[in-house]
Parts: sequence; C-alpha cells; structure tokens
Amino acid sequence: MRGTVLYGPGDVRFEDREAPRIEKPTDAIIRIAVTCVCGSDLWPYRGIQKIAQPTPMGHEYCGIVEEVGSAVKTVKPGQFVIGSFCISDNTCPNCRNGYQSGCQNLEFMSRAQAPYLRVPSADGTLVPTPDIPSDDLLPSLLTISDVLGTGWFAADAANVKLGSTVAVVGDGAVGLLGVLSAKQMGAARIIAMSRHERRQQFAREFGATEIVTERGDEGVTRIMDLTNGIGADSVLECVGSEESMMQAILSTRPGGSIGYVGVPHGMKLDMPPVFFHLVRLHGGPAPVRRYLPDLIKLVWERKINPGKVFDLTLPLDEVAEGYRAMDERRAIKTLLRP
Amino acid sequence: MRGTVLYGPGDVRFEDREAPRIEKPTDAIIRIAVTCVCGSDLWPYRGIQKIAQPTPMGHEYCGIVEEVGSAVKTVKPGQFVIGSFCISDNTCPNCRNGYQSGCQNLEFMSRAQAPYLRVPSADGTLVPTPDIPSDDLLPSLLTISDVLGTGWFAADAANVKLGSTVAVVGDGAVGLLGVLSAKQMGAARIIAMSRHERRQQFAREFGATEIVTERGDEGVTRIMDLTNGIGADSVLECVGSEESMMQAILSTRPGGSIGYVGVPHGMKLDMPPVFFHLVRLHGGPAPVRRYLPDLIKLVWERKINPGKVFDLTLPLDEVAEGYRAMDERRAIKTLLRP
Repeated sequence: MRGTVLYGPGDVRFEDREAPRIEKPTDAIIRIAVTCVCGSDLWPYRGIQKIAQPTPMGHEYCGIVEEVGSAVKTVKPGQFVIGSFCISDNTCPNCRNGYQSGCQNLEFMSRAQAPYLRVPSADGTLVPTPDIPSDDLLPSLLTISDVLGTGWFAADAANVKLGSTVAVVGDGAVGLLGVLSAKQMGAARIIAMSRHERRQQFAREFGATEIVTERGDEGVTRIMDLTNGIGADSVLECVGSEESMMQAILSTRPGGSIGYVGVPHGMKLDMPPVFFHLVRLHGGPAPVRRYLPDLIKLVWERKINPGKVFDLTLPLDEVAEGYRAMDERRAIKTLLRP
Repeated sequence: MRGTVLYGPGDVRFEDREAPRIEKPTDAIIRIAVTCVCGSDLWPYRGIQKIAQPTPMGHEYCGIVEEVGSAVKTVKPGQFVIGSFCISDNTCPNCRNGYQSGCQNLEFMSRAQAPYLRVPSADGTLVPTPDIPSDDLLPSLLTISDVLGTGWFAADAANVKLGSTVAVVGDGAVGLLGVLSAKQMGAARIIAMSRHERRQQFAREFGATEIVTERGDEGVTRIMDLTNGIGADSVLECVGSEESMMQAILSTRPGGSIGYVGVPHGMKLDMPPVFFHLVRLHGGPAPVRRYLPDLIKLVWERKINPGKVFDLTLPLDEVAEGYRAMDERRAIKTLLRP
C-alpha cells in the first residue's frame, strides 16, 4: 500500500508503507472512500509545528469497513462509516458528558491520507450511514469527520440560537462551514469576515448575510457599527492567532459567546479585555463524535451541502499538489480520491 | 463631611471632603448605613495598581435615600436602598441582556467609604428593600452590593446546578461567598481550596463539603483525585492571578465551566491548555444589578447570612486600621459603621 508521509517543510511524499492490520480486538480496518487535506496539516507542512521524524498524515476519513476486531460490536464489514479525527471510547465520563475529544483514552487520528486505515476504538469512534451512499454524497459525508464537525462545534460553543446575530472570524474551510452551521442553528444575521472575493462568495452561498472585509481594529469597528454599538451575540473564531482571538473578543457583546476552534500555537491571551468585555469563551478540539449522528442525517437527507467547500479534487497519489494548492491559497480545501 | 481618601501605598486618610450633592436630575444622595473595605481596594493600597492623585475610596454601600434628582422615579427619600458597585442605566441593550456591568453608560462607584454618597443613575443602580431593615440585617444586605453579588456571579458564570461538583479557588471574602452561592444553587459537593484554618472554618459554615489545602499542581492533583480523575463540573476562580487561573482550568472537567471574578492585573493566559482542556470561561465585573432583587429577598427572609464574612467591625473614622487589618490578613473583611 502507498500512503502520505510528511518528511519536513514542503516535503509530502506518497510512498510505500505497510498496510494496516487489526492490532487490538477493538480495531477496525476501513477502505477509504475519500479523504482530504486539513488546514491544520499546513502547520507542520509550513514548518511552524516541528516534526521529529517522517510522519504519516491525514485525519479526515470515511469509507467501507473491511474487517473488525473480535470485540467490535456496533459496526461490521461492508458498512459505510464516518469517524471523528479524535479516537474515543465513547464510554468514559467525559464522553458521556458529550466531550469525546476529551476522552480519557483519547488518541488523535493520523494516517488517513491512504487507501486503508486502522481505526482504534471502532465502536466509540465510528458511526455507520443508513446505507452505502451515492458518489455525490461522499464529499459532504467526509466533511463531518472534522471540518464540518469543527465548524459546528464553533457555532454550538458560541451558543448560536434562533435569531442570533453571529460574526465569523476566518474564511478558511472551517469558518465557511461555521457559517453553514450558524445558518442551520437559526441565526438571523451572519457576518462573515473575509477579504477574498471567492471565499466571500462561498460564505454567501453557505448563509452569510453580510461581509466585512476589514481586519483587526477596523474589523471590530465595522462589527460594532453593524450591531448598533453592541457587538454580536455569538462569534466563531476559526483562525487561532492572538490577533483573530482579540478581534473576536472585541466584536462580542457583554454576555455574548465566542466559540473558538483555531488551534492556538503557543498563544497567550491578554486577559483584562476578556474580563472587562464580559464574554464567554468555549472551544477546543471538536467533540465530533457527539454530532456525527445528527450531521449524517442532515447530509443524508440533503438538507445541507457542506461538500461544496472542496474546490479542488485530486487522485490520492497527487496529494503533494493538494498540500501545495492549499498552502498557496489556490484551493480552500483539497479532496483526495484513492 | 469626612471621607476616606487614599494618598499612596499604605496611606489611607479619613479627612474633610465636600459633602455630595445632586448634580444631575438622575442622581440620588444616600446616607450610608454601613460600608466596607473590598479586596480590590488592596491593589492600590499595596501600590500594585498606581493612582495618579489622592483618590476617594469605597464602592460597597447601602443606606437611606436622603434626596433624589427630579428625574428619579423608582426610589424616594426615606427608603433603604442597596446599589451595585457598577453604576448602570439599566435600560441599554447590554443592561436588558442582564449585563449591567457592561452598561453603555457604565461608571464605577467610588467615594462610598463616607457618611453620604451621590449615586448617579439612581433608577438603574439602586434597589429598595421591602422596609427599613433591622440592624442585624445590615451586614448581609451590604454584601449584596459587591462581595456576595460577585461570588454569586462566579457561581452563575460557572454554571453551578443542582447536583454539581464545584471547586472554589481563593479563600478571600468573594471565594467564601462563592461557596455560599454554590450551596444555594444546589451544588452536591463544594471543594474549597484554602490553607488557612479560620477561612476553612468559614468555608465549611457557608457550605463547603471538602477542603483542599494544596496549591498549584498539587492542588490540581488533589481535585482530580477527589473527582475520579475527571475534574469538577464548575470552578470558581476568585483570585485573578495566572497561577490561580491555571489551577482552575486544570481542575475543570472537559465541557465544565470556570466563573472567574478575580480582577486580572495585566495577566496573560496560556491558551493551549485552555483549548485542549475544553473548558468554558466566563467572568468579569459582576452584573450585581441583575441579582439585587433575588439576593435582597434571600437575605430579607433570612435564608442566607453572608454578613458573617465580616470578621472585623470598626467605626468609619478608623478606616485606616480596617485596610491594615485586611492587608496583614488579620481580617477577612472589614465592616465600617459611620
């Protein structure tokens, strides 16, 4: 089998690797239908996050179960399944509280940019679809694994409700699907912050009602102008930098909520503005497992079409070009077909 | 009239000052029944927070209305009233959202350590009691103005619910009344973190079920031991230092909540642990005005006795000793009687 391995900054190779096999009775092996490149894959690709050795890549996946370990009860060979990028037992107290991304036996998936994948804790991580999906549903089903699940968590953590005024900081794939999520949750106004015309267009298609092109203090001023000087009820922070977080905080009304899902790399947050703005902060790695059944239903019934976010599709063996296109911002998100 | 003025570190004077008078039609003048020294008064008293000039002190107050401006409608001379340390109009969108401490016309009270006090925005800031209270109720009624209101907000912001497991970081007056608040909200377990025997005793009287004497990493380990490795549902952070905030974050279960009310002086928070621990953060200056009616009722019906937190009572003209006793940790909180 060949799979994707990152050797260092800018050096992605699709090369021979041992095929995965059942290692524990709770494992499953799945044949990947589609996989993709995540914005977070670009951190090590750009050398900002160091890697110690050649690292197999990929954590967004769906496909057909090939084989299961002897202890697996809820999925079986032949089923089409989607799993979270967080591997969870779904039985510990944190999982039962709906925080499978804080599972006491948490592992992060990798190695999914390959034709076959071993999924540990299969019962706790995978959810089958009602049937084998038609090919056109695959991109949308794949988004549930991380990018949609993460945008959904941002909106949920930001307490988006019927009638809410929402602002979204970040026009990457997560931010765009945060717009879609806020729309689904009944937001009345969704202000997308983006300077890129194509991404603005995507945001509007997913439900944005207004676009703010300014950033930083000017962006905050625009949001305040648009909300009669109050700020938004909910702000989705989908970048992870200090600047974007501060922009989110200053754009939120007192008592309003920020859902933040951009991974903060060593970020330190200046607390006095957070304190005096009286905002609520919640975020982290999305508990995708909690949302899987509902999001599968929404996609299956074609009520949402998050798969539109893939604006580049490549054969899996051209994965290196998939990374390059995203790194150079030629593509928002690259879909890979084995 | 004589009032309290801070001249510099350790230099509190009770000296002649102009008596307050109605300046705007929305003002009221009240005759102070009791006032007190706040933990936050110690910041400038210790020179950690700089003052530019001699500064009148005091922001916790209750008493009898002497006079009102022509536009004041909801309180009248002769009534006993309690006000928030935050002056609010109680009509702007932020106030209507329950965040009077984020009022668009917010001012912070000062000058309350004096026999008479001008209260701007009287209608939006003051709430009358059902009748003139008996003398023994005064300490408890006074606490509502800030220290109880702030402890209550900490518990509310930390989402304390019936059956919750709660930890309280900080054994000052706010932390102790945070314990009382969590108890009122139905917490099943309240773990107070304190190394001081007298304060531990107070915490137990207010409802703490367990005491943890360790701090920092050891304190976190103890909380994790006491909660089967999960962490508390709700943590009240009542200090405001980076160490206490990190202790709170690491003691909270994934999806659990931290209510933080300790004023962060230039604190920077390391975000990766906040992110990966999946906690909720909410805090700031307490919207006491929101809680005033309910807290007055609880005290009036003698269901709670937060006034116990005053372990030193002095005549107002001995205010300097009141500061000294708190600074030297001989007193938890000093009540002052004009």
